[in-house]
Amino acid sequence: MATIGIDVGGGSIKGALVNEENQIVKQCTRVNRINRSSEEMAEDMADIIRELTQDGPAEAVGIGLPGTVDDEAGVVVYTPNVGFRKYDLRAALKEMTGYEVHLINDANAAAFAESQIGAAQGAESVVVVTLGTGIGGGVVIGGKLLTGYTGAASELGHMVIVKDGEPCGCGRKGCFEAYASATALVRMAKKAMAEHPESMMNELAEKDGKVGARTAFEAYDAGDPTAVSVVNEYLDWLAEGLANLINIFFPEVIALSGGIANRGESLIKALEERVYPRTHGSAYALKRTKLAICSLGYESGMIGAALYAKSVME
Amino acid sequence: MATIGIDVGGGSIKGALVNEENQIVKQCTRVNRINRSSEEMAEDMADIIRELTQDGPAEAVGIGLPGTVDDEAGVVVYTPNVGFRKYDLRAALKEMTGYEVHLINDANAAAFAESQIGAAQGAESVVVVTLGTGIGGGVVIGGKLLTGYTGAASELGHMVIVKDGEPCGCGRKGCFEAYASATALVRMAKKAMAEHPESMMNELAEKDGKVGARTAFEAYDAGDPTAVSVVNEYLDWLAEGLANLINIFFPEVIALSGGIANRGESLIKALEERVYPRTHGSAYALKRTKLAICSLGYESGMIGAALYAKSVME
Repeated sequence: MATIGIDVGGGSIKGALVNEENQIVKQCTRVNRINRSSEEMAEDMADIIRELTQDGPAEAVGIGLPGTVDDEAGVVVYTPNVGFRKYDLRAALKEMTGYEVHLINDANAAAFAESQIGAAQGAESVVVVTLGTGIGGGVVIGGKLLTGYTGAASELGHMVIVKDGEPCGCGRKGCFEAYASATALVRMAKKAMAEHPESMMNELAEKDGKVGARTAFEAYDAGDPTAVSVVNEYLDWLAEGLANLINIFFPEVIALSGGIANRGESLIKALEERVYPRTHGSAYALKRTKLAICSLGYESGMIGAALYAKSVME
Repeated sequence: MATIGIDVGGGSIKGALVNEENQIVKQCTRVNRINRSSEEMAEDMADIIRELTQDGPAEAVGIGLPGTVDDEAGVVVYTPNVGFRKYDLRAALKEMTGYEVHLINDANAAAFAESQIGAAQGAESVVVVTLGTGIGGGVVIGGKLLTGYTGAASELGHMVIVKDGEPCGCGRKGCFEAYASATALVRMAKKAMAEHPESMMNELAEKDGKVGARTAFEAYDAGDPTAVSVVNEYLDWLAEGLANLINIFFPEVIALSGGIANRGESLIKALEERVYPRTHGSAYALKRTKLAICSLGYESGMIGAALYAKSVME
């Protein structure tokens, strides 16, 4: 029987019907925005569930959310950007659709999907790090998702790597996210562009109408010295956090996703050089963590939510 | 049937026979020092096994070691202070005693024991942090020890919290261990004592003939302003690392051991104030990680190694 996976984001709520071969056979989307009520968003999800079950019932429904969920309680505890605060989404959707939905953090959903059918398939343990506006994290050990006692585990972006450093959206200072997200790269690029008006980054940004992670990487590829220094600085921060995660989890695979991960193999090579020397006992290690790029793209959230709901039912 | 647990330290190799009620029924010890060969230390362990099995065979033998082990391979990969480097301890002890021993990191052994019969008994997840000369870590999730792909997981002391900060024995800079171990507290105390000759810590240190963690805490308890500031600084560093570990694992319990943990409830209270506000989404949390003091003392290493060996045999 097919399973439904729903991925709730600030811009859209996307649903997919996933068949037993883990392929998406049907999709539907509702527009979302940041100031809607929990009830309005739940109504959209109910709509999606109804639409995806027109041709027959689903085995399970999983919902990925951008924040903290407590799947045991069925409650969305806190999603910073879309407005859920201790909202009993399971009860709401049970009433509207009859389905007992399962809740999962969206980065956890992506990690679960990558561990089951993506870049880390077959690995005994995997840490997925999403490099986007922020840094999301998901950890799967022995086929099981790390959710922690509270359901809020693996907020890997909110590990402080510079005490009293750059302010982070979470309220702490010096988080990994504040130094190694795409947003952090843009901050570093802007600072360097102001200090080096001759940098090619200024030209590229003017053409594009904005400074993005691409601005830095494109100029880096062209050999612009300022961009080379910005990208190297960024890679060093990223490597520092990844080395921490290896020392903590020593997973078989760390898989990266998000826009910056599109750099692919050149990113992996640059990180290997910087990460391995920082891992504990690396000189004597018999095995080492493989660094990889996630393979499922934006669908990983929906697929992961579906796979998670199915795994909980089993 | 009873199980043997052996705890290998820089000063001694301690063995215990642990009965089915998880009580130590017999103990024996050999003196150790840092420059002995792997073979000499293995010979001592064989001796201990022979002595502890004089009245009957053991069900399993577990050996806790201060460093990285690969229990799958049976190899002690790297112990910084006692000299094992990629040593096949399982093969050596199999030949000498007939037992197929199991290997575990010593901090992991302590964590496993605390999770099974100590301060975190019954908790679904626990992180144990040992505050000693360095910082050791052990993580148990759903009754299973986190060992990682390499066997080297949970080197929690080697999570960088200040990029390019204080040098750490591991080769990195700014590790949690370099700011929140007892050694780090002593460093902070010495610096403050030099700057404040009037501090009571100078008097206490002269009386004791050395500066220890106790010097700072004793003067703190007496209200010495310099000591108050040193201890508060230390607690702030410790809280920063513990908050990271909560954001990463969100365990049901974090249990502290080592000399500093003897401060007991007053330490827990001081940390709760500092740690909880730093945990992700704390304002909306339905549940929170409990901070606790380990309850098994120095026997936890032996008991944990025995329990681990038994759990692997099952």
